[in-house]
Amino acid sequence: MMILSGTASESVAEDLSKELNVPIINSISKRFPDDELYVRIHDDIKNEEILIVQTTYPDKNIMELFLLQDAAKESGAKKITVVIPYFGYARQDTKFKDGEPISAKAMAQLISLKADKAITVDPHKEHILKFFTIPAFSTSAVNEIASYFKDKEIDMVLAPDKGALNRATKASKIIGCDFDYMEKTRLDGETVEIKPKSLESEGKNVAIIDDIISTGGTMAKSINQLKKQGANKVYVACTHGLFAGEAVKKLKNAGVEEIISTDTIQSEFSKVKIAPCIKKVLTNTNI
Amino acid sequence: MMILSGTASESVAEDLSKELNVPIINSISKRFPDDELYVRIHDDIKNEEILIVQTTYPDKNIMELFLLQDAAKESGAKKITVVIPYFGYARQDTKFKDGEPISAKAMAQLISLKADKAITVDPHKEHILKFFTIPAFSTSAVNEIASYFKDKEIDMVLAPDKGALNRATKASKIIGCDFDYMEKTRLDGETVEIKPKSLESEGKNVAIIDDIISTGGTMAKSINQLKKQGANKVYVACTHGLFAGEAVKKLKNAGVEEIISTDTIQSEFSKVKIAPCIKKVLTNTNI
Repeated sequence: MMILSGTASESVAEDLSKELNVPIINSISKRFPDDELYVRIHDDIKNEEILIVQTTYPDKNIMELFLLQDAAKESGAKKITVVIPYFGYARQDTKFKDGEPISAKAMAQLISLKADKAITVDPHKEHILKFFTIPAFSTSAVNEIASYFKDKEIDMVLAPDKGALNRATKASKIIGCDFDYMEKTRLDGETVEIKPKSLESEGKNVAIIDDIISTGGTMAKSINQLKKQGANKVYVACTHGLFAGEAVKKLKNAGVEEIISTDTIQSEFSKVKIAPCIKKVLTNTNI
Repeated sequence: MMILSGTASESVAEDLSKELNVPIINSISKRFPDDELYVRIHDDIKNEEILIVQTTYPDKNIMELFLLQDAAKESGAKKITVVIPYFGYARQDTKFKDGEPISAKAMAQLISLKADKAITVDPHKEHILKFFTIPAFSTSAVNEIASYFKDKEIDMVLAPDKGALNRATKASKIIGCDFDYMEKTRLDGETVEIKPKSLESEGKNVAIIDDIISTGGTMAKSINQLKKQGANKVYVACTHGLFAGEAVKKLKNAGVEEIISTDTIQSEFSKVKIAPCIKKVLTNTNI
C-alpha cells in the first residue's frame, strides 16, 4: 500500500503514512500558465493499492482529486481508496427546492468513477455515503475532540441544535459531563432567545460541538446568549472548520474562550489530528 | 428542446437560442458564503431535450457544468446534450510522461456520466472525441474565421507549425489566397529563425491561424520574425482565445495588426460568433 497525497491534505497524508507505516508517493501538482492543473506521479505504483488523501473543498481540490485518480489509474494502480477528510458539497444532500441538483450525490458519483472505495469523516448526514456508487464508509472525530477537552474542566457539552444532539451526547460521555442542546424560543416578533433546552449555564464551562463551522453565525449567536445567561468559559469545537468570511472575528467578538477544529481542513485552529480516526475505519473495513 | 446556459457561455447560449428558435431555461448560479457553488433550474424541463451550453475552462466552469447536468437529470430531462464551446484540458490528451493523467480523457469521462451526447468546437486533437463514453462530435470555426478576413486583403494564411497546416489550408481556400506554415531553423547555438517554409512574406498581408492562443509566446515570435522579414500587416486569429498572462501585450509588442478569436471564450477579441457552427453540427447529428 502507498499513499498519494493531494495538496489539500498533505499533513493528514503524512500522519496517515506514519500511522499505517506505508510510504508517501512522490508526486507533483502545479498549474499551467493558463491556470489548468497538472499532476504527475513520480514513483512506480503498478499493481499497488493506493490511498489518495484529499479534502474535496474548495472546488480546486476536487479537480485535483479527479486528476490524481486518473493518474493513479493510468499508472496501473490495482485498487484506489479515496480518503476524503472533508467532503465538500455535503450539505446539498437533497433537493430542498425543485430544480436543484443534489450536489453531494453528483460529487460522490463523479469521485466513484475512478475509485474502488471511499472513506470520509463526519459527513453532515450519513446518508450521503449511499450516493457513492462504490463502497463508502465514514468515521467520526467526536472521540478525539472530546479527548481534547478532558483537562478543560467542562461542565456541559451543548449541541447547537436538536439534530446535532447525538454528537454532543457522545462527547459528554467521554468528557464525563452533562449534555443538552440549544433551543430557539421566539419571545416576540423581534426577539429570539437561544438557550440550553433544560440545563442552566450560569457559572458553567461550556463546549458547543458541531460537525461544521462555516460562517460561524449560529455559533456566534449561541456564544453571545450563553455569555449573557452567565456562562463562564464557552468553547466551540467542530470537525470541519471552514471559517468562511468573518467567522473567526464573529466568534471572538461573541466572547469565545477557544476555537477547536480537526485538520480535515488545515487552519490555525486544527488542534485535533484526524489521521488516527481514519486509520481506525481503514482497519475495520480491511483496506 | 430547451437551452440551459452555464455562466461561461451565456452569449453563445443566447445566439444558439435564436439560431435554433428554442427557449433559454431560467436558471441561477451563485456561491454559498463558503464559496461552494449553487445552481437551480426555475422552469419545468420534465421530459424535455436539453442542450447545456458551457465552456469547461477555467475549472470553476467545469464544476458548474457538473452541477447543471445533475440538476437537469434530477429535474427529469429526457436527453442531455452538452455543448462545450471550448473544451478545457484538451492539450493533455495523452501521457507525455510516465505518471501523468490523461486529463482530457478524465474530463470527458466525468462529463459523460450525466449526458447523452457531447459537442465541442475545434478540439486541439480530434481523437479526444473518443474519450467521451457517449457519442461526441466536433465542429470547426475555420470557415467563420476565414470569412472575417474576406475584406482584409490577405495575401497569405500561415499555420504556426506544420501540424496546424490543415486549418490554414482550409482558410486560405475560403479567402482565396496562398498558404504555408512557419518553420523553425536553428541557425547556430543561439539563434532560431522562424519563417514561412516556402513563401516570401515581404510586403505581404499575413494571417496566422491557430486553434488556441494561450500565452501567445509562439505567436509573438512568429509575428516578430515576419515583421523583420518585411511582412506588411500581420493578423493573428484563433478559435479559442485564452490570452493567459501577458499574451495580449506580447502580441501587441510584436506588432500584430489585429487579434481575432471566436466567442468560445468571451473576450474583447471575440469577433467571430460560434453559434452558427454549433447549429450546423447539431443539425447534422440530428439532435
